[in-house]
Amino acid sequence: MNVENKFPGKDISQEDLETKFPLAAKKYPGHKSRFSVSGVEFGGEHIPVLAGPNMVESRDLILEVAQSVKNSGANFLRGGAFKPLTFPYRSAKYNETREQGIEWLLEAKNKIGIPIITEVMEEKYIPLIAEVADILQIGSRNMQNFPFLTACAKTGKPVMLKRHYGASLRDWLGAAEYILIEGNEKVILCERGVSVPHTHRATSRFLLDLQVVPAAQEVTHLPVVVDPSHATFWRPWVGPMALAGIAAGSDGVMLEVHPEPSNAAVDPLQPLDFNEFEILMKRMSIVAKAVGRTMS
Amino acid sequence: MNVENKFPGKDISQEDLETKFPLAAKKYPGHKSRFSVSGVEFGGEHIPVLAGPNMVESRDLILEVAQSVKNSGANFLRGGAFKPLTFPYRSAKYNETREQGIEWLLEAKNKIGIPIITEVMEEKYIPLIAEVADILQIGSRNMQNFPFLTACAKTGKPVMLKRHYGASLRDWLGAAEYILIEGNEKVILCERGVSVPHTHRATSRFLLDLQVVPAAQEVTHLPVVVDPSHATFWRPWVGPMALAGIAAGSDGVMLEVHPEPSNAAVDPLQPLDFNEFEILMKRMSIVAKAVGRTMS
Amino acid sequence: MNVENKFPGKDISQEDLETKFPLAAKKYPGHKSRFSVSGVEFGGEHIPVLAGPNMVESRDLILEVAQSVKNSGANFLRGGAFKPLTFPYRSAKYNETREQGIEWLLEAKNKIGIPIITEVMEEKYIPLIAEVADILQIGSRNMQNFPFLTACAKTGKPVMLKRHYGASLRDWLGAAEYILIEGNEKVILCERGVSVPHTHRATSRFLLDLQVVPAAQEVTHLPVVVDPSHATFWRPWVGPMALAGIAAGSDGVMLEVHPEPSNAAVDPLQPLDFNEFEILMKRMSIVAKAVGRTMS
Amino acid sequence: MNVENKFPGKDISQEDLETKFPLAAKKYPGHKSRFSVSGVEFGGEHIPVLAGPNMVESRDLILEVAQSVKNSGANFLRGGAFKPLTFPYRSAKYNETREQGIEWLLEAKNKIGIPIITEVMEEKYIPLIAEVADILQIGSRNMQNFPFLTACAKTGKPVMLKRHYGASLRDWLGAAEYILIEGNEKVILCERGVSVPHTHRATSRFLLDLQVVPAAQEVTHLPVVVDPSHATFWRPWVGPMALAGIAAGSDGVMLEVHPEPSNAAVDPLQPLDFNEFEILMKRMSIVAKAVGRTMS
Repeated sequence: MNVENKFPGKDISQEDLETKFPLAAKKYPGHKSRFSVSGVEFGGEHIPVLAGPNMVESRDLILEVAQSVKNSGANFLRGGAFKPLTFPYRSAKYNETREQGIEWLLEAKNKIGIPIITEVMEEKYIPLIAEVADILQIGSRNMQNFPFLTACAKTGKPVMLKRHYGASLRDWLGAAEYILIEGNEKVILCERGVSVPHTHRATSRFLLDLQVVPAAQEVTHLPVVVDPSHATFWRPWVGPMALAGIAAGSDGVMLEVHPEPSNAAVDPLQPLDFNEFEILMKRMSIVAKAVGRTMS
Repeated sequence: MNVENKFPGKDISQEDLETKFPLAAKKYPGHKSRFSVSGVEFGGEHIPVLAGPNMVESRDLILEVAQSVKNSGANFLRGGAFKPLTFPYRSAKYNETREQGIEWLLEAKNKIGIPIITEVMEEKYIPLIAEVADILQIGSRNMQNFPFLTACAKTGKPVMLKRHYGASLRDWLGAAEYILIEGNEKVILCERGVSVPHTHRATSRFLLDLQVVPAAQEVTHLPVVVDPSHATFWRPWVGPMALAGIAAGSDGVMLEVHPEPSNAAVDPLQPLDFNEFEILMKRMSIVAKAVGRTMS
Repeated sequence: MNVENKFPGKDISQEDLETKFPLAAKKYPGHKSRFSVSGVEFGGEHIPVLAGPNMVESRDLILEVAQSVKNSGANFLRGGAFKPLTFPYRSAKYNETREQGIEWLLEAKNKIGIPIITEVMEEKYIPLIAEVADILQIGSRNMQNFPFLTACAKTGKPVMLKRHYGASLRDWLGAAEYILIEGNEKVILCERGVSVPHTHRATSRFLLDLQVVPAAQEVTHLPVVVDPSHATFWRPWVGPMALAGIAAGSDGVMLEVHPEPSNAAVDPLQPLDFNEFEILMKRMSIVAKAVGRTMS
Repeated sequence: MNVENKFPGKDISQEDLETKFPLAAKKYPGHKSRFSVSGVEFGGEHIPVLAGPNMVESRDLILEVAQSVKNSGANFLRGGAFKPLTFPYRSAKYNETREQGIEWLLEAKNKIGIPIITEVMEEKYIPLIAEVADILQIGSRNMQNFPFLTACAKTGKPVMLKRHYGASLRDWLGAAEYILIEGNEKVILCERGVSVPHTHRATSRFLLDLQVVPAAQEVTHLPVVVDPSHATFWRPWVGPMALAGIAAGSDGVMLEVHPEPSNAAVDPLQPLDFNEFEILMKRMSIVAKAVGRTMS
């Protein structure tokens, strides 16, 4: 690949590709990583969907969601048992279920037959979570926690690396390189919104950056997934942005789904309910087909 | 419409809708302006395309582009005869054609039979341009030039109001209200990229804000168009972002098209050539259909 | 001046200095414009203070403020008679006083003996305002209204060019060049806050960018003034930021002063009262002296 | 403290102060933490200076810098032995000295008699570093690595918490609360630049946010330090911004100092040399005195 002289002041140079993130960089036009995670391919024609609640609130909830999203065509169950919280105080409702939550995810995986993606936050819990999760999710706040990236990489498990809301594409690929250099080739990038000065009608400070989808795909062979729920923080915008993400060329979509969004333990304005998710799955499939991809 | 209590710290309040931009605000769910400009409807099922060169460089160029984009299905010819320039020095190549450019646009309109959208920059040229243009384009740098907005509105001509790259949705709707209050109801909003700290691999400082499409449509009845050429500044990203704009629910797409992009008088990295535009028109039509809209 | 090779990806290049804004660019190290406006020097050792209300609300108010700020050592009376408003609706309180306000400014100037700076918003009012004002203020929203910059420049009056809240230093100097190219050498730059994603405890979207003071002074010979009232939007922060502006090397300070801030027609949270202004003047003088400058 | 009703859309509410970061929040006007670290008081009239190289490159270098900055009046020696790097590849020059670097810091501390501040990056190295360092520095990229904050807090050592370049004041105080809640009251906040869209003449993406100094001091009793070297990335701006930081009310200044900046192992454009540091110390003392503070 040669990017030299395209942009006079470009953020990513040919030298970056060769010396800063040679493993993440595309080697030739059309170079694209394709790999299978628990029978689901990333980086290919098919666009995987990762759906579930923000938090693994209870055993019943996670089993119910797992069955419902699977029925609607989701490929992975997402849900956080360990959760980063901006403030150290938790409401009773907002309690992390931690080790117990991981057990419930395992039960959902075995009973319903759907692979799991869940967040890891601390090195000491990596072995526990890596035993259950099919994909380890690294949250945006840990994107540049380099020793932690290395520790996750060493498990050999597929890793989804969320982009920090203040990170450039260059920073993000630098973080991905920390995982790749350990010999772990199953790295999935996930865009989840950047902070911008131009506030919308929202409390959320985030804007889903869809331009980074073609920008990333121009320089890296890694699959790029989008997470419109977290970025928009607002249910009515999730559908349009999910469809837009697919049209922009995303290699996957992550979505929050909850049986009763208004009772969600956290961020009740953003999850879809089962019916909304099912309808969106159908609409996403149609748009995927329109851009030469498939879904569910 | 009642937006109260949705967002605790929302940027746009119920009071804003009622007192700051009551004319731009939706009155009821589903409220949407539909109006016809020279036979092309905005705000309806059909998604108009406005295509052409950044600058009206010469008579031959504009006639050639007019014919080609019309053949590919564009609804309007775009092209700047008066152009804002960040610096006061112009290369020979980068010269504004001004009054002459407006004449050439008129000739293209009459000979090829395609309506015209072109930028106005000064009050004194409004009468000249309003005679030829089917839509007056107000550039992003003039978005909050309030006396100028009023002067454009008073022509009664349809107005496309580009969002400033630093403006919130609230500011943008305030500017639209200045046009609506003059009794001019044919206002089209155009998103053309916001400035963000998270630079991509680009010299451009802009990110096409597609989240603003559903955000705007939630609170205003005005049609919202997207301009991916200007935002991305980079040809390979124009197609993905145009498709994403349609999937996100845009009411129109503006695109730069040039017979020989590398010889364009300005910003040669962003326009599509005729063949690329024709292919993109077909792809856009398919995505439009996938989301229940039509194009060309 | 040679800036080449200092920064690999710098925003302002040697080529910019030579071809984009050769008149605004420094010609040699230490190159600094010094010029006098109605007996007050800009660009020298002395730091001028421009103080007064946001709006010229009434004759009594402006005469009272003029006397008070002059007594405390201000060099210019500031006050807006023509005001840009984000929304087209005005409360009775928030009414522009326009031509009448300009007359009151003239009366204050003559009776109290203090020069005037006030904003121009439209080409047609330039002659009226240029007759009264010692400095024409161009608001941030008009920073890239290029024909208007030219029209202001042609009056020959000193011009204060406020930086747009979304503009880079490069854009700002390009706008200054439009004034300089008309032969008008009395251009004063004014930093008034940039929009940032990292919100503080404020409704204001702005952050006073003091880093731009040394950054501008490195490449341009034009004086740079800071306006902490508008940027911070919050009285308790105005003093610290004014002092910081002086310590950073500003060539002037603009401040909002109102006899009864809580009754100000607009933005009542930001102006200082007479007593606070007098105290701040003394503190600013001490800091000015500490950095080898003088004030009042 | 009651902040209610000051700002209609304020980022930090009364509820935040009471429930999100009650330990970090001021309890009454004028409430300010004052505590001593190895004989140097933070939060009082005196403004501590923390100076030294970006990296602990060698034994000779760190001993030489320790002696020089101490002679010029610095209160702490700063230097990184463990360093976060955006990309996983290190030049020979840019090598972390890790355990050995910590030993050299200990030697400098004992021989020269100057307390130490150095960065911790991983839980497993906390005991090693806590034995030597007088202050544990938490880098901006780890600001929201919550389990790590807890682990650092539990050492009982004073902690300097750098603000993430994308973090709001609210996020930052939430992170501080994680340390305070462990009973560790010696928390120092450090502003080191935020990312902004309005690029200067710099490769750096950062702008030193001095407005956050009075903003933080309005709601928290914790001392606030500024780091202009890292923010500006450019030696000529370090001095003006350090002086501005003091004038804005900072409770400390962190500076990079290197015997031969052009040979620094990393970021050679930003450190001051010994002579520049000595001159700046004198200028800072004068400005400190002008605002009623003392330095060295």
